[in-house]
Amino acid sequence: MNIGIIFYFLGWVLNIEAVLMLLPCAVSLIYGDGRLGCFLAVMAMCFVIGWITTHKRPKSSVFYAREGFVAVALIWVVLSFFGALPFWFSGEIPSLTDALFETISGFTTTGASILNNVEGLSPSMLMWRSFTHWVGGMGVLVFMLAILPLAGGGYAMHIMRAESPGPSVGKLTPKIKTTAKILYVIYLVMTLVQVVLLLAGGMPLFDSLATSFGTAGTGGFGIKNSSIAYYDSYYLQGVVTVFMILFGVNFNVYYLILVKRFKEAFSCEEARVYLGIIAAAVVMITLNIKGSFESVFQAFHHAAFQVGSIITTTGFSTVDFDVWPQFSKTILIGLMFVGACAGSTGGGMKVSRITIWLKSVRNELLALVHPRSIRTLRLEKKSQDAGVIRSVNNYFIAYFFIFAASVFVVSLDNFDFTSCFTAVAATFNNIGPGMGAVGPMCNFSQLSVLSKFVLMFDMLAGRLEIFPMLILFSPATWRKGW
Amino acid sequence: MNIGIIFYFLGWVLNIEAVLMLLPCAVSLIYGDGRLGCFLAVMAMCFVIGWITTHKRPKSSVFYAREGFVAVALIWVVLSFFGALPFWFSGEIPSLTDALFETISGFTTTGASILNNVEGLSPSMLMWRSFTHWVGGMGVLVFMLAILPLAGGGYAMHIMRAESPGPSVGKLTPKIKTTAKILYVIYLVMTLVQVVLLLAGGMPLFDSLATSFGTAGTGGFGIKNSSIAYYDSYYLQGVVTVFMILFGVNFNVYYLILVKRFKEAFSCEEARVYLGIIAAAVVMITLNIKGSFESVFQAFHHAAFQVGSIITTTGFSTVDFDVWPQFSKTILIGLMFVGACAGSTGGGMKVSRITIWLKSVRNELLALVHPRSIRTLRLEKKSQDAGVIRSVNNYFIAYFFIFAASVFVVSLDNFDFTSCFTAVAATFNNIGPGMGAVGPMCNFSQLSVLSKFVLMFDMLAGRLEIFPMLILFSPATWRKGW
Repeated sequence: MNIGIIFYFLGWVLNIEAVLMLLPCAVSLIYGDGRLGCFLAVMAMCFVIGWITTHKRPKSSVFYAREGFVAVALIWVVLSFFGALPFWFSGEIPSLTDALFETISGFTTTGASILNNVEGLSPSMLMWRSFTHWVGGMGVLVFMLAILPLAGGGYAMHIMRAESPGPSVGKLTPKIKTTAKILYVIYLVMTLVQVVLLLAGGMPLFDSLATSFGTAGTGGFGIKNSSIAYYDSYYLQGVVTVFMILFGVNFNVYYLILVKRFKEAFSCEEARVYLGIIAAAVVMITLNIKGSFESVFQAFHHAAFQVGSIITTTGFSTVDFDVWPQFSKTILIGLMFVGACAGSTGGGMKVSRITIWLKSVRNELLALVHPRSIRTLRLEKKSQDAGVIRSVNNYFIAYFFIFAASVFVVSLDNFDFTSCFTAVAATFNNIGPGMGAVGPMCNFSQLSVLSKFVLMFDMLAGRLEIFPMLILFSPATWRKGW
Repeated sequence: MNIGIIFYFLGWVLNIEAVLMLLPCAVSLIYGDGRLGCFLAVMAMCFVIGWITTHKRPKSSVFYAREGFVAVALIWVVLSFFGALPFWFSGEIPSLTDALFETISGFTTTGASILNNVEGLSPSMLMWRSFTHWVGGMGVLVFMLAILPLAGGGYAMHIMRAESPGPSVGKLTPKIKTTAKILYVIYLVMTLVQVVLLLAGGMPLFDSLATSFGTAGTGGFGIKNSSIAYYDSYYLQGVVTVFMILFGVNFNVYYLILVKRFKEAFSCEEARVYLGIIAAAVVMITLNIKGSFESVFQAFHHAAFQVGSIITTTGFSTVDFDVWPQFSKTILIGLMFVGACAGSTGGGMKVSRITIWLKSVRNELLALVHPRSIRTLRLEKKSQDAGVIRSVNNYFIAYFFIFAASVFVVSLDNFDFTSCFTAVAATFNNIGPGMGAVGPMCNFSQLSVLSKFVLMFDMLAGRLEIFPMLILFSPATWRKGW
């Protein structure tokens, strides 16, 4: 294990984090909320550690897949730790565990909160909290790859693979650095468009920025206790609905549109399945809940918002869906697992994996019925090799074992099964609110410290798609001589 | 598809079913409960159809894997239909849907009941209901293979593979017919031993027989409304506990003991993991519930009974575990999925599959960290080929998709999530009682007809391990020219 280079990258990420804190600093200055010192102190710490670890490039530039996994997992943990310090220093979140939970929830774009009263936070803290979503959505290491002139080494591909969501990395261009830049430009432009549209609907600038950060990263932290229900406007909620769904689409599609390869863009299998699932879920839920709303349109509006919010794993809410009929709730729980497209900012298992699994089962059936026929598994018209399929299957298995183990531990807190189950589902899939005791109108503060740490692990494992976190904590990784 | 031979086997199974009904006929005669006519009528129907389809052996003896899957799935459906008729004819279960549910629950050794008052059934019906567990446990087609002199054709292996639980069939002897015979002899002897031990504890003969049938098949139908809690004796409940656990062990182990290959028997990896899981679960639950019992021994007694009952997917109960703390309940829900050993009468996913999956994930991690190392997956000291692993993985995926789809449909009935989730978990894993509205002190009668049919499918899919049922209902199976 080449620890030197991992710490070198860690240093750069801390430098970047310090720079990113300029945004809350600016907010603090504008609103005069007196929290500038907290951010400056943390920035100083980041820069000092950053300088120590980056002032000399490590001699060995050996960087294999394992360094990629360990670097990404470790850096996310450290990034979250320093990101949590302002909340703790300011006393606005008195417990370090809670501050860490909130920050991991932010960077992993989960949106699960331990705060009883979000509106009690000072403006700079609120902005930092929402901004972590934006940074975590596309990935801080991808950002590092995009902006830093780090020459040499095959590290870029390994880092990209470990940090980007989805079963395989779509290289838009031959150079990873260019790919990372393009992704961030698309991301930034789409976020700005949303900000403008929200401003046009009469939302204040502060709220527009924070809401757009939460939407773009598919995070879900609101700045109001009642989440998006606060903005009681079909237009504003509609804009958020559309952008949540847009940020859940594979970014490859936007790149293809950008370079005018429209035909390819519109034939993207994953995006089509994704939109198909959304349409089906919205129709079913609308029919199921229309009795409790004044009009079918209103039912449709809220169904679309919740479906978009859950499948993209954003976690905003406009209504308390915990009181909906069980059928609608079960659909939403199902969508928690499906998740958005690979190569988007959304979480969950990803539509492409679901598609691969369904095709894999179909092929198994055909193989059982006709043992001598040979079948290949195709996705996006490309046949998937055995390695990808094996890896995707093992992801599925690891997913359910971690899921089950987490539910065991959380159930020690003695909440009902729905609460335990959806607490894990909501954090592991990076959604945010669950149901029952962790429903959209409740929060995670009442859980025990043990449960909180398990859920923090789940949030990181969910965002980084399990393997980096397992590898970080696996003894085999650290065995001598390897 | 060679329909001729499938109907030929179907006819034999109906003949066998008619013969099996001699047991409830005898009970009816002894108790004079006036239900003899119902059974005789159904026996006549079975013999007529049996004679029509078996009096001439079909010309083509072509029998491939697909014929095996279709034959097994179809025969189980038809077997259940005729098995349900006595309940319906007698009017003791007035709805045909409910009678079918109860019988499928019996043959698949699920033990989920729609009866509010079990004790209201007449003795012959009660005995038939419990006897279906015994027949379904080891498999009616395996029984057919064991007793009928059906020469020629490679059908035996295909049938055995489709009907026996587990990822691969353990051939005890080179001849399938001999293997089937040995399995049934072990099964019969163990059942008789349990009957004798229960009699020795003072249980009446009728109750001993019915209880032993339920235990041996890991079924769980009780003949008392309070299940095994009725027999308020540590000895009787202890005997049931031990035998539930014994019937969940891979029968290969008993065969090895029988032929005095003790070393091999005691090194069976699956059985060791299975007993290890039981021990761990019992300890954790005992510690968790000891506060609500008079003594630690009492807590241990009930913990062991419930763990044995759930992991072997029997479903007997001595206490209402729905009121236990959530941690214990979550462990029990987890055990519902684990299930017993392959090659036993128990259901669930099977311990050997769980073991393969965990090893598969471990290998994936090692492959990610050290891409050039080569690793094989071993179970019982034999390396598993890629085909088995692929098939086991596809089982896992198909399992969860069917599970999710079933929960969707059942949640239309608008029970809470725990009830919907555990209703599917309890039927798909062939356990019996779930929690909440379908808890150990409740039953499945309040569900809608749609939900009941979905759960019937789940029970059959669970018992036959998914693929036969999927193949029966897959259009590709029935496409012309294949």
